[in-house]
Amino acid sequence: MSHNTFGHLFRVTTFGESHGPAIGCIVDGCPPNIPLTATEIQVYLDKRRPGQSRFTTQRQEPDQVKILSGVFEDERTPGQVTTGTPIMMLIENVDQRSKDYGDIRDTFRPGHADFTYQAKYGVRDYKGGGRSSARETAARVAAGAVARKIIPGVTIRGALVQMGPHRIDRTNWDWEEVHRNPFFTPDARAAKFYEDYLDGVRKAGSSCGAVIEVTASGVPAGWGAPLYAKLDQELAAAMMSINAVKGVEIGAGFAAAAFSGEENADEIRMRRGKPEFTSNHAGGILGGISTGQDVVVRFAVKPTSSILSTRKTITSAGEDADVMTKGRHDPCVGIRAVPVGEAMMAIVLADQFLRHRGQVG
Amino acid sequence: MSHNTFGHLFRVTTFGESHGPAIGCIVDGCPPNIPLTATEIQVYLDKRRPGQSRFTTQRQEPDQVKILSGVFEDERTPGQVTTGTPIMMLIENVDQRSKDYGDIRDTFRPGHADFTYQAKYGVRDYKGGGRSSARETAARVAAGAVARKIIPGVTIRGALVQMGPHRIDRTNWDWEEVHRNPFFTPDARAAKFYEDYLDGVRKAGSSCGAVIEVTASGVPAGWGAPLYAKLDQELAAAMMSINAVKGVEIGAGFAAAAFSGEENADEIRMRRGKPEFTSNHAGGILGGISTGQDVVVRFAVKPTSSILSTRKTITSAGEDADVMTKGRHDPCVGIRAVPVGEAMMAIVLADQFLRHRGQVG
Amino acid sequence: MSHNTFGHLFRVTTFGESHGPAIGCIVDGCPPNIPLTATEIQVYLDKRRPGQSRFTTQRQEPDQVKILSGVFEDERTPGQVTTGTPIMMLIENVDQRSKDYGDIRDTFRPGHADFTYQAKYGVRDYKGGGRSSARETAARVAAGAVARKIIPGVTIRGALVQMGPHRIDRTNWDWEEVHRNPFFTPDARAAKFYEDYLDGVRKAGSSCGAVIEVTASGVPAGWGAPLYAKLDQELAAAMMSINAVKGVEIGAGFAAAAFSGEENADEIRMRRGKPEFTSNHAGGILGGISTGQDVVVRFAVKPTSSILSTRKTITSAGEDADVMTKGRHDPCVGIRAVPVGEAMMAIVLADQFLRHRGQVG
Amino acid sequence: MSHNTFGHLFRVTTFGESHGPAIGCIVDGCPPNIPLTATEIQVYLDKRRPGQSRFTTQRQEPDQVKILSGVFEDERTPGQVTTGTPIMMLIENVDQRSKDYGDIRDTFRPGHADFTYQAKYGVRDYKGGGRSSARETAARVAAGAVARKIIPGVTIRGALVQMGPHRIDRTNWDWEEVHRNPFFTPDARAAKFYEDYLDGVRKAGSSCGAVIEVTASGVPAGWGAPLYAKLDQELAAAMMSINAVKGVEIGAGFAAAAFSGEENADEIRMRRGKPEFTSNHAGGILGGISTGQDVVVRFAVKPTSSILSTRKTITSAGEDADVMTKGRHDPCVGIRAVPVGEAMMAIVLADQFLRHRGQVG
Repeated sequence: MSHNTFGHLFRVTTFGESHGPAIGCIVDGCPPNIPLTATEIQVYLDKRRPGQSRFTTQRQEPDQVKILSGVFEDERTPGQVTTGTPIMMLIENVDQRSKDYGDIRDTFRPGHADFTYQAKYGVRDYKGGGRSSARETAARVAAGAVARKIIPGVTIRGALVQMGPHRIDRTNWDWEEVHRNPFFTPDARAAKFYEDYLDGVRKAGSSCGAVIEVTASGVPAGWGAPLYAKLDQELAAAMMSINAVKGVEIGAGFAAAAFSGEENADEIRMRRGKPEFTSNHAGGILGGISTGQDVVVRFAVKPTSSILSTRKTITSAGEDADVMTKGRHDPCVGIRAVPVGEAMMAIVLADQFLRHRGQVG
Repeated sequence: MSHNTFGHLFRVTTFGESHGPAIGCIVDGCPPNIPLTATEIQVYLDKRRPGQSRFTTQRQEPDQVKILSGVFEDERTPGQVTTGTPIMMLIENVDQRSKDYGDIRDTFRPGHADFTYQAKYGVRDYKGGGRSSARETAARVAAGAVARKIIPGVTIRGALVQMGPHRIDRTNWDWEEVHRNPFFTPDARAAKFYEDYLDGVRKAGSSCGAVIEVTASGVPAGWGAPLYAKLDQELAAAMMSINAVKGVEIGAGFAAAAFSGEENADEIRMRRGKPEFTSNHAGGILGGISTGQDVVVRFAVKPTSSILSTRKTITSAGEDADVMTKGRHDPCVGIRAVPVGEAMMAIVLADQFLRHRGQVG
Repeated sequence: MSHNTFGHLFRVTTFGESHGPAIGCIVDGCPPNIPLTATEIQVYLDKRRPGQSRFTTQRQEPDQVKILSGVFEDERTPGQVTTGTPIMMLIENVDQRSKDYGDIRDTFRPGHADFTYQAKYGVRDYKGGGRSSARETAARVAAGAVARKIIPGVTIRGALVQMGPHRIDRTNWDWEEVHRNPFFTPDARAAKFYEDYLDGVRKAGSSCGAVIEVTASGVPAGWGAPLYAKLDQELAAAMMSINAVKGVEIGAGFAAAAFSGEENADEIRMRRGKPEFTSNHAGGILGGISTGQDVVVRFAVKPTSSILSTRKTITSAGEDADVMTKGRHDPCVGIRAVPVGEAMMAIVLADQFLRHRGQVG
Repeated sequence: MSHNTFGHLFRVTTFGESHGPAIGCIVDGCPPNIPLTATEIQVYLDKRRPGQSRFTTQRQEPDQVKILSGVFEDERTPGQVTTGTPIMMLIENVDQRSKDYGDIRDTFRPGHADFTYQAKYGVRDYKGGGRSSARETAARVAAGAVARKIIPGVTIRGALVQMGPHRIDRTNWDWEEVHRNPFFTPDARAAKFYEDYLDGVRKAGSSCGAVIEVTASGVPAGWGAPLYAKLDQELAAAMMSINAVKGVEIGAGFAAAAFSGEENADEIRMRRGKPEFTSNHAGGILGGISTGQDVVVRFAVKPTSSILSTRKTITSAGEDADVMTKGRHDPCVGIRAVPVGEAMMAIVLADQFLRHRGQVG
């Protein structure tokens, strides 16, 4: 977990800027002999791809992934498989709009990383946000697609459960619905509402936040570890590393603080010869280790900072200024965070699985 | 960040079980020539030490820290200083009450790590929770005391801002008040209320959760890094690694999801030749890098799972059973999480400072 | 240092197989604002590039490096500089000769990694050695070129000091000579001799080993660290990670075992206000930390295993077989190990420099 | 592998100075349910313990190890086992002779780390070498004893194969002999010779170097990994991290440079249904991965720098001076490096085994 690498045995190192020639990643530590094609990975990239509805940025990026290493097809045993060596995945940037960046070259956009990158490095690639752009998350999605193949018994699904201040009605939850609306929300009625709501936000040149929930079913009891490799800790790190995320919670999360001890601790009963919990406030994790229940994580995405209103700021020369961010932006960047959150869940679980197998066998 | 080690250049490795002979840690990577005595460290350990009021566990542990390595006093230049080599700190366990653990040896306590440790390792030290005990956090506090010495310009302060469902009134915030009540809360009126409230909880044999806020002032702009070493990501990991923590948020956190883009992004103005933000929804972090504002993190602590009510559970033999956790426990473990959260903030910042200095100079 | 990543703060992750579409690396942790162009890197790649004399493999690879990320040119301040974000460097494979690999698909070549890759992974990319090919070292050379820019006061030079059983005469040492002969040897007379010698080896379809010496001048006293981050330890790891290397020594190395204590320990005297050692048996390193003298490492490269003689081996089906390795190969792979050894020296020093600066300031 | 930690999944972090209260280590990542007692570990410590013959330092250290965490004995299943949590092992320093260190406080001993520690840190614990003392290796031996338990099918044996300039006659090799002489040498005739030789060295107040060979039998094919986690690379790092080691080689090592390709590459034949190599120049490693043959590593230990002759040096004030190292020292520190080399081999193999199991299953 150092700067641009995430994970321990299953390690993802990403590179690339928004307006450079390409982005991508190297996945190291993948087990060998796993069937893997670019087509499979593309499925997830397509889910995250911009420009698919009027509710995401209109930047047109095909996001076609190429696998440059780490796979092999032996002509005698058809089908490309992983070899256990680093898997390099490359995604070319296509639609870097040629424009004048003069506005933001010298002026820090409030809520962006412009100010902090400049403060840290004394230089920054101001084109399209450079390295701090959400475009980097495409590499995560590609890596996540590989991670899923390592833990085939686990089903990972994400959903948008709040847009702006508007939460879904959880009693309407339908996983199938997630694929039917452009918001990845499991509540069909909320989807309807969000359509109007987000049109309003978009037309006002404003933006809104969101809360995303990602669930992993089929995780056996025993993954994770004390104390600084806790499954929940690594999920928190994973989600908080996504652009614009400001909060993470596991299971009942912040609500657990208001529970009594009696309400909070999930009771256990034997059912058909197996332990079964009567509730899942723990979000599938106790002491940093999976319980066998669904692993549940939620994270809050702040509203996109790129808005059409004029905002007070300063220039790199240290003078007060006003700034307005033109260009193509997601009115609710939280939507496309759904496949990204799924990918990070997959990466954490794949890594924890391999480490568990390493230590315990 | 691997199993029992946290940090990169400033690295903390902890060891020890609740009822073993001792707990402690090795701090590696500390800069040399920093004055450091056990007495200074003891100040922070005393803050976390149990048995100081009726509101924490009655286990009597002096928690006296001994420094076994990594410091040196040259007779010509009085005063013990760090040498740059590993600092080993040892805290002996004194009050391991000799008792019969038969109840919990074979029966998993709901909400505890009993079940998951057994599932993972096939063996567990059931005495007092073994490694999963909150006793491990004493080692963190000792390491945090060392970390503070590395970043002397930074002031780190923690506070309890919610107990059970009851939040403080932030307009009453007074940092001095934090030291005057046994709850580390900055709101004197809330402190009064919490006293009665927690007495009720305690007498009922129940427990409650809490929300803790930790603030670091004096962090210069530029600490942290993209993308998997974000300051907020590492804070999330640090706080989520504390026992019983179920949620973490930075700045406005989950509330930011409900903001509009206009409300959320903190505007900037020059004030006395320096950039000043008109608000701090970002919690002092943009793009994973510090802005120079206060770094603000909040985390939710679930209610202690050890309660006097009978709870449904199973045995290690796979049979339904009832369990009631006797013994000495914190009715609100969140209280003692305040100095622990401060320590983790210090550890993260010290590590980020050293890494920043390494890369950027 | 995990599988395909080397280094701690300055981290190099390589990818790619000999006969895949490309090889390359991501360099993470590079300080910002360092001028860096592909042209500068190309200089070092050209030195390692095959096909430049009859003494190296005839594979024609232009080894043109492209920088895909991590650099930026601000139009106002001409010249491309690093931004502190990951530097991705890509080198396309051009001359993968389309041939029948049937011979080695099922037959393990003695001395190659064929057998062990198959044993480990149960699958292997048998085309041109796949990931175990020396072609991977091009990525190291590119990364080393970046590393050199971080430590501009340090001069790193490598030389071939033994070919087959024939050592150079060190009294003839002339660094200028290194660039004048195709063997990177500093002894002009040895170069003459090696020409005939290696022609003989080559024509016989045989191969020979070599010993390479790499020296870094200008390293200040104080780089390195106890105990598992010793400068000599990391140099040993770095050199031993190069294909075909079987031994590494620092300073006097193995010869030191035969010295008396009086002979071995380098004495010190003040010269012009600075400490000066009267000898350098230590190779510039004491206790894992640089002394300020030249850092000197030597490594032994075994003869290329690909030879034209028939050798006894087995097939993957577990049957005895004979094998002869046709194709284009280096008769003395040690020659091209010179720029690779230099690159690894640069990578180790750059990383140690950044870590030293991190801890000590 | 950062400063004071070695390993990835099986991780050893050591601490302690020669004349501080204690030394020791934390072993993290050990699999659970492995029987482990202090008595078993003591066997290896006793082998390394000083003062057992006139040929090692006369410092009297019982080197009694205490296990402070990570093990558990369930009263129902007698026998202490590992729990999978960190194993802390403590060894108290007993015989720190109270003496005047004035001589070496301000004067750098040639060949010691005095000069470099001072240059790096600006402070050093000059008592008995502080952290740079070979006393640290006791902690490695304790960790190595734990590592051996993880790989029970592997037999690790070390031997002294050269003392000063005098090599053993390998045709006399007898592993039993290693335990019969105070030099851990497998050649009975050499042992006889070394007795006189080392008496001479000792009486002259001088010192001599040594070469140690460590062999691991029973390592299956497939451990290790490309490219920066090569088994030979990690062995090189492990051995070079031992005090006073100046060279490391695998299998034929430096001699391989003088071989022809025909001589060097070990041929393979099927024997009783298994691959068998007709020689082992590779030292059991090809492409960084074990072949199933004996893993063979050799390392050179320089002569102890502490000798009774007067040597030229400088003071910390930058003045020329003479120094003579009195005190108790090993005339041939290489002897006690034998159990240390064995321990490092065990640590590397245990770590590689766990990582292999993690990735490949």
